[in-house]
Amino acid sequence: MTERLFTFPTLNQAQIAQLTALGVEVVPASDWETATDIDIIFGWGEHGAAVLQNPQNHVRWIQTFSAGVDYLPLDWIQAHHVQVTNASGAYSAAIAESTIGYLLYFLRDFNDAVKNQAGHFWQVPARTELATLANQKVVIYGTGSIGQHIAELLNGFGNYPFGVNRSGHGVAGFQGTVSLKDDAELVKDADVIINAMPATAETTHYFNTAYFDQLNGVRIFVNVGRGKSVDENALMHALLYQNVLNAALDVFEHEPLPKDSKLWDYPNVLITPHQTGFDVDNVRPIFGYLTDNLKSWEADGTLSVNLVDVSRGY
Amino acid sequence: MTERLFTFPTLNQAQIAQLTALGVEVVPASDWETATDIDIIFGWGEHGAAVLQNPQNHVRWIQTFSAGVDYLPLDWIQAHHVQVTNASGAYSAAIAESTIGYLLYFLRDFNDAVKNQAGHFWQVPARTELATLANQKVVIYGTGSIGQHIAELLNGFGNYPFGVNRSGHGVAGFQGTVSLKDDAELVKDADVIINAMPATAETTHYFNTAYFDQLNGVRIFVNVGRGKSVDENALMHALLYQNVLNAALDVFEHEPLPKDSKLWDYPNVLITPHQTGFDVDNVRPIFGYLTDNLKSWEADGTLSVNLVDVSRGY
Repeated sequence: MTERLFTFPTLNQAQIAQLTALGVEVVPASDWETATDIDIIFGWGEHGAAVLQNPQNHVRWIQTFSAGVDYLPLDWIQAHHVQVTNASGAYSAAIAESTIGYLLYFLRDFNDAVKNQAGHFWQVPARTELATLANQKVVIYGTGSIGQHIAELLNGFGNYPFGVNRSGHGVAGFQGTVSLKDDAELVKDADVIINAMPATAETTHYFNTAYFDQLNGVRIFVNVGRGKSVDENALMHALLYQNVLNAALDVFEHEPLPKDSKLWDYPNVLITPHQTGFDVDNVRPIFGYLTDNLKSWEADGTLSVNLVDVSRGY
Repeated sequence: MTERLFTFPTLNQAQIAQLTALGVEVVPASDWETATDIDIIFGWGEHGAAVLQNPQNHVRWIQTFSAGVDYLPLDWIQAHHVQVTNASGAYSAAIAESTIGYLLYFLRDFNDAVKNQAGHFWQVPARTELATLANQKVVIYGTGSIGQHIAELLNGFGNYPFGVNRSGHGVAGFQGTVSLKDDAELVKDADVIINAMPATAETTHYFNTAYFDQLNGVRIFVNVGRGKSVDENALMHALLYQNVLNAALDVFEHEPLPKDSKLWDYPNVLITPHQTGFDVDNVRPIFGYLTDNLKSWEADGTLSVNLVDVSRGY
């Protein structure tokens, strides 16, 4: 039986042919108002909920284009037993490279150089202002695909980071891990803190005033996880009072970051517009997850890659 | 016999005690006008030539604080059989980290993000504008301590660079090497070109108009070697005509880079003020070279670490 797959990303002829060969009829996003009998959704977008909840469709599986799935109507999805597979892993290499770039941007004092360049100032910093990544104590929140990729790159610098996850279970590439509730001792003398956790009830505003108050001049705070995990007002307070000296942020409580957010003007903050995972080669692995899952789906009704636990949200 | 060591860097009590225990009397730089009977110079500075050439001194050895020695009066030094040891290796780890930082700054599109942040612009780039370091073809000129450290860090990203050196001899960490005169084929389709060569007659203006003309949109050109190796006018021409798309420069033909240099305003150039080697921990390894050399010097008159071939200039 031919399944109907509704796709938000525009697919090329080769991709459509590949899906057709797997027994799937491709319905483009432009047909969202008239399409019926949809079984599978690939990606997500403005009319995603309308397609999903249209009673003339019977969607049983969503393959997202993103790693996080917090923007989906998860309650409805759980109630209607729709399965979700995500793009976890597709962005991890690029996010990890961006994260190393963030750390070197501050450690190697590019942040001052960029500002001095604008004014034609040859302002040589003190040797003591620069440090090497090899010698930083790094703590990574989230030891899944992204956290592991960051750890792996850090290892190449001779740096063995610490990890924080739900249970405190050990993970390769980390010199130690603790559970979320046992992180106080670990972060007290951290040089670098990186958030790479998914957005869940447990992680919402995890980085709040109480969290930042316990720090004493952490050199760099990085958020490449989800914006909701950070209370931005608390972070700005920490930056002003130097519990955090620098921050690199790719995700925000509200995106786009509002034009009048004070964060834009912090001289010790680097803002990127939710782009750390971008890569000229992004589509290839995600299309691979879709076709791998299609094969197992057609064979025995299972989804073999990146199945999300909808009740947990990741 | 007690040797007299003239030091440009200010030494702390522990360091002076260590040198005294090695049979050396320390003369601080502030005494440059009155000091006599100097045997050894540590570091270099404004009155270096006066101290070196003062007939009341008899300097036989200079331990520099720098890796490059092109600023020393090498003809005079060679004619008077003064030996020179440099600080090669002390900066390599920091320079290599800075170089990776440069590459990620452009590959992960921080250069645009920084400019957009200043205007509060949430300007999401196209996925196709970002790339990963893992997938770049990197060519490193100079396969000594700095080049090898850069290669080692690149290897951690799954990147195996090509090297260019005088003879084309193979070096660990590189997937291949060619000699300086055989580089044309190699650079034609390079994504990244890094200069980490010392300043010599052979390398002066090596990167000139003819060099840049053979390129076809190299993504990033990096200079962490010496400023004299690059004809800056030729580089600016290449940037304008997109033979080179971006450049990160730490060294310049004239330092400080003149206030009216047009380089400051190139939007696709990152300028740092000769700081890539800086590290809070710089002094430790260099003081180690000094004391290691002092020990062999006192024992049998040899210099065991980082002896420079003055005739070659490195």
